[in-house]
Amino acid sequence: MKCAHGIEARQVNELFINIDPIQAGGRLTADAMKAVIAYGDGYSVCDNCRKPNRLDYISKPPIAEFHRDLAAWLNMDMVRTVPGARRGFQAVAHTYVNKGDPVLLTSLSHYTEFLAVEECGGIPREIAVDAGHRVTAEAAAMKIEEVTREFGRVPVLALIDHVDYQYGNMHDVKEIARVTRQYDIPILYNGAYTVGILPVDGKDLGVDFMVGSGHKSMAAPAPSGVLATTTERGAEVFRTTATEGDITKRKFGIKEPAMMGCTLMGATLVGLMASFPHVKERVKQFDRELENNRIVMEALLSVEGTKVLSEYPRRHTLTRIDTIASFDKVAEYHKKRGFYLSSALEERGITGVIPGATKIWKFNTYGMTRKQAMHVAEAFLAIAQENGLIS
Amino acid sequence: MKCAHGIEARQVNELFINIDPIQAGGRLTADAMKAVIAYGDGYSVCDNCRKPNRLDYISKPPIAEFHRDLAAWLNMDMVRTVPGARRGFQAVAHTYVNKGDPVLLTSLSHYTEFLAVEECGGIPREIAVDAGHRVTAEAAAMKIEEVTREFGRVPVLALIDHVDYQYGNMHDVKEIARVTRQYDIPILYNGAYTVGILPVDGKDLGVDFMVGSGHKSMAAPAPSGVLATTTERGAEVFRTTATEGDITKRKFGIKEPAMMGCTLMGATLVGLMASFPHVKERVKQFDRELENNRIVMEALLSVEGTKVLSEYPRRHTLTRIDTIASFDKVAEYHKKRGFYLSSALEERGITGVIPGATKIWKFNTYGMTRKQAMHVAEAFLAIAQENGLIS
Repeated sequence: MKCAHGIEARQVNELFINIDPIQAGGRLTADAMKAVIAYGDGYSVCDNCRKPNRLDYISKPPIAEFHRDLAAWLNMDMVRTVPGARRGFQAVAHTYVNKGDPVLLTSLSHYTEFLAVEECGGIPREIAVDAGHRVTAEAAAMKIEEVTREFGRVPVLALIDHVDYQYGNMHDVKEIARVTRQYDIPILYNGAYTVGILPVDGKDLGVDFMVGSGHKSMAAPAPSGVLATTTERGAEVFRTTATEGDITKRKFGIKEPAMMGCTLMGATLVGLMASFPHVKERVKQFDRELENNRIVMEALLSVEGTKVLSEYPRRHTLTRIDTIASFDKVAEYHKKRGFYLSSALEERGITGVIPGATKIWKFNTYGMTRKQAMHVAEAFLAIAQENGLIS
Repeated sequence: MKCAHGIEARQVNELFINIDPIQAGGRLTADAMKAVIAYGDGYSVCDNCRKPNRLDYISKPPIAEFHRDLAAWLNMDMVRTVPGARRGFQAVAHTYVNKGDPVLLTSLSHYTEFLAVEECGGIPREIAVDAGHRVTAEAAAMKIEEVTREFGRVPVLALIDHVDYQYGNMHDVKEIARVTRQYDIPILYNGAYTVGILPVDGKDLGVDFMVGSGHKSMAAPAPSGVLATTTERGAEVFRTTATEGDITKRKFGIKEPAMMGCTLMGATLVGLMASFPHVKERVKQFDRELENNRIVMEALLSVEGTKVLSEYPRRHTLTRIDTIASFDKVAEYHKKRGFYLSSALEERGITGVIPGATKIWKFNTYGMTRKQAMHVAEAFLAIAQENGLIS
């Protein structure tokens, strides 16, 4: 089925249980879908933009109210929307990082954090992980000391993922923030896998910045995200423009250079807003999500040779497993080679595993019903049985 | 009608002829609307992302093909999508502008160009306009000389709007580019009001960069835009990442730091793509658009006292008029004050004039049928007659 000019009408989330590691939290809610249809046109939210002419002041649709609610929900003082979490990293990096400045990342930092640092000419320095692939406060303190010896000064900024993209492990941001605070290093909490997925509290964590991803974890269209901060840091990263035209003497009001003025002027923002009430509810049910993950994991681990590479028991639904000694053994002789696994899953209405992957791979059970989790668990067992991995 | 949580179902473009100055070119086509519905979910275009894992390499949906077609259509060598034209300015500014560097803008530059320069610490210097509010090559040359005297060096970058946001005047970018080339100054063509509206040709213009806006002029959802360049400049602004993790030794493939990696991962991109065939056709009909504008303008100018502030005859449909000596006279005594005009227009099914504006204001006739243009013209005449401005 085509919707236009070679663009197929995508029905992945209508026809399948999608266990793609990055897509589970970004499926639109029905309310977001309706809102996106109503606000699809370009500058659709700008109909009632009045002085001082900035996106977060618009009251119809209730964008100003959304900003207040979102900040309160994150327990931070101020928030702006951004075109993806990465644009939040970029805004903060551009505010604090100059050429040659060391910046604290981790051995599990996302590539967009590296790019944000690189674009400012900053020098990334990774905190080591422990044997369980976790970033600890002790390791953070050691790295800060190491950076201080190398550069003669502490890192100018720390970007720490609460849950990382590789293992879905949960890192102790609260304790790490305690350390960075001792060194007066501003700390950015990367909540791309947590904001909109599980409960988070910025003040409790003690972080300066919180970044979330709309299209990854807040049931919103891409590109969308949020950047929240404290009143103090807000004055820095949300500084208003100070430039002026040398001939016209034009000034540009309260527009914010790090935001490039207004950010999400249409469907992306309204999608984020329409999903927000649902997102606030779903984070409270995160224990059910972990229970669904456990159901799938127990099935997978019951196939001899399967190893979980993520911390276990799981504290997040994004999970990395090693099936070299189980499902990959079948790939050696199966006529579809490694593609047999994704193919057999698709036959059972499950998608999102990279076609061909049978060695080390990731999946995400977020957003399933209990019944769907049981179906996925049974599907893995049936495929194992079909291929002689279990009898 | 509500679509969710206080978000009203917007029907502006369904129920009205919309003459909002910035919205006319951003209304979705029916194909874009269908595509947005099919690709609303977060990372919806990433289902078939395979190595080398970059947005512009994805072939299903045909994103790679779209990039090639778009570059060819603009007559440039390379193109990337960006979350709004402003993010194109930002990427180019960050590549060429360092703290204290002079940057050439114009007295009619958009605020987002100023912000892009400000965020890099650059110093904006405006080219003067002539009496007709036009930026000429002569004035550009004079300003470059003036900057050279002031800074001891030429500007590091020029950002020039082909059609400006204030008057909708068309500026001679081709001649200006001839001048900047003589000084070896890279020049960015801001086509926020032209790319997707009227025919443009990057090689003919002789520019280094072309920026277009998806949500302003390419019938796409916000935030979306395009940044095109030459092979030579592409190696600079689309440079690939060179950073590395100091512990993990991770590198990040062919991701581009100035783009922050992938840019428009869902509805925004697919909306842009689905509208593209229509956009390619509509630019060929731009003479019809000017004719519709002329119909409305002649009606307005037939009301004694109305002045056109834009160049006339019009070369673009965005038009700035002065009705202080016509429609504003009614506002002095009308019980609705200045709101009578927008109110009387709404009664006639026309929206997009700022409520209360009767002195100096802008409108855009883009995208109307001939019949709609005649209706708008007649509406202005009827309102003038009703209020005793014409007999």
